[in-house]
Amino acid sequence: MHWSETGVEERAFALECFGRSVPGVLWMPANEPGPFSLVLAGHGFTMNKHTLYPLTLPRDLVVDFRLAVAAIDVPGHGERQPDRGRDAPACEGAWRDHWQAHGAKEIAEELRATLDELQRLPEIGRAAVGYWGLSLGTQYGVGFLAEEPRVVAAVLGLSGLPDPGPRIAAYAAKVDCPVFFIQQLDDEVASLDRSNALFERLASKEKILRSNPGRHMAVPSATFEDAYRFLAERLRR
Amino acid sequence: MHWSETGVEERAFALECFGRSVPGVLWMPANEPGPFSLVLAGHGFTMNKHTLYPLTLPRDLVVDFRLAVAAIDVPGHGERQPDRGRDAPACEGAWRDHWQAHGAKEIAEELRATLDELQRLPEIGRAAVGYWGLSLGTQYGVGFLAEEPRVVAAVLGLSGLPDPGPRIAAYAAKVDCPVFFIQQLDDEVASLDRSNALFERLASKEKILRSNPGRHMAVPSATFEDAYRFLAERLRR
Repeated sequence: MHWSETGVEERAFALECFGRSVPGVLWMPANEPGPFSLVLAGHGFTMNKHTLYPLTLPRDLVVDFRLAVAAIDVPGHGERQPDRGRDAPACEGAWRDHWQAHGAKEIAEELRATLDELQRLPEIGRAAVGYWGLSLGTQYGVGFLAEEPRVVAAVLGLSGLPDPGPRIAAYAAKVDCPVFFIQQLDDEVASLDRSNALFERLASKEKILRSNPGRHMAVPSATFEDAYRFLAERLRR
Repeated sequence: MHWSETGVEERAFALECFGRSVPGVLWMPANEPGPFSLVLAGHGFTMNKHTLYPLTLPRDLVVDFRLAVAAIDVPGHGERQPDRGRDAPACEGAWRDHWQAHGAKEIAEELRATLDELQRLPEIGRAAVGYWGLSLGTQYGVGFLAEEPRVVAAVLGLSGLPDPGPRIAAYAAKVDCPVFFIQQLDDEVASLDRSNALFERLASKEKILRSNPGRHMAVPSATFEDAYRFLAERLRR
């Protein structure tokens, strides 16, 4: 039996943050001291910290690129709803209430607090930080990135500027780290026009648009692999 | 930040077995010496070692019950098909060829060889062994269990006796460990009659039928939780 060089260690945490308990998880190469560059990963709508898109994101980044990955359940999702995310309509209601009241603000606070705490670990420390968030993970991700200078590169996409959406537009105009943006030409959730508008709004000097045929959840694996490489290379600089 | 007591360590392996390379993965509590009782988990049709049903099975059993869990890709699935399982029809063809030629025989050999190797690890050793396999994981699972006295308890279900199916029926009649059998009353894959016929055929003196309303992939989480407890309790004896 041959064992692969890199195993994956997964640690669950709960962060007390502004009176809220935020459940999260950290993945890292097992049995190695680090420090590891860290990718904060934002999950999509009705998903949770364990169901990122792609599902294999933590394993792929840890095993193939020796990065650490961390994710939290955003409000109304995962452990933060009574039935632990098994009922999509309930998730939708809880989410809508939160988003109308707070927009990206509270989630950005939580991601920032998570990053503060993770940087106290010797395995992370002051290693470089990236962000990965598609679909809803882009909607709140731009709110986080707009005011988070520690993030040096991001993968965004499957999302567009919402119709009135002044906040998202204003946040996007403040995102200036290198961005790899994934767009699906037949996306039934984010229209092409809105997606293009969001991409154009990003202030990043280095931004890459990767556009593929196909629907919202049909991103080709080759695109994910290029996005991994983009992120890993910027985090290594 | 509060860290949960049990982290999860994931190790990938490749087993050379009768000239075949069998990719697998082992999950265990991180930073603990063990030995841990082991659950071998068989994935379903078009799924793979990382997409067990439920998806959270390894984490649930490791974190909540301090068990180790191992899974392999069966022929035609996961890493064992050219496009790594992304194309369901291709998976179907490769699987059908294999199943017609070998039935459960080769997979049972591979599971046995995997168990042999895992028992050499100090973290596993001679601790108790269980099996979890639903749907297709039951079809080949009974072939494995029929000739594997090391398994002391199993969770099976979402599957029935196939129409001619002499091999599956013969295997089932040799399964005598305690079994927790999951059945869905509106299962569109395994009919109620066939499912009942398979459950009846099992030779186990201790067998529990858990029947719920709902379709194939709509097993209530409470049923999974009871199945975990069933398995964990028998492995503890």
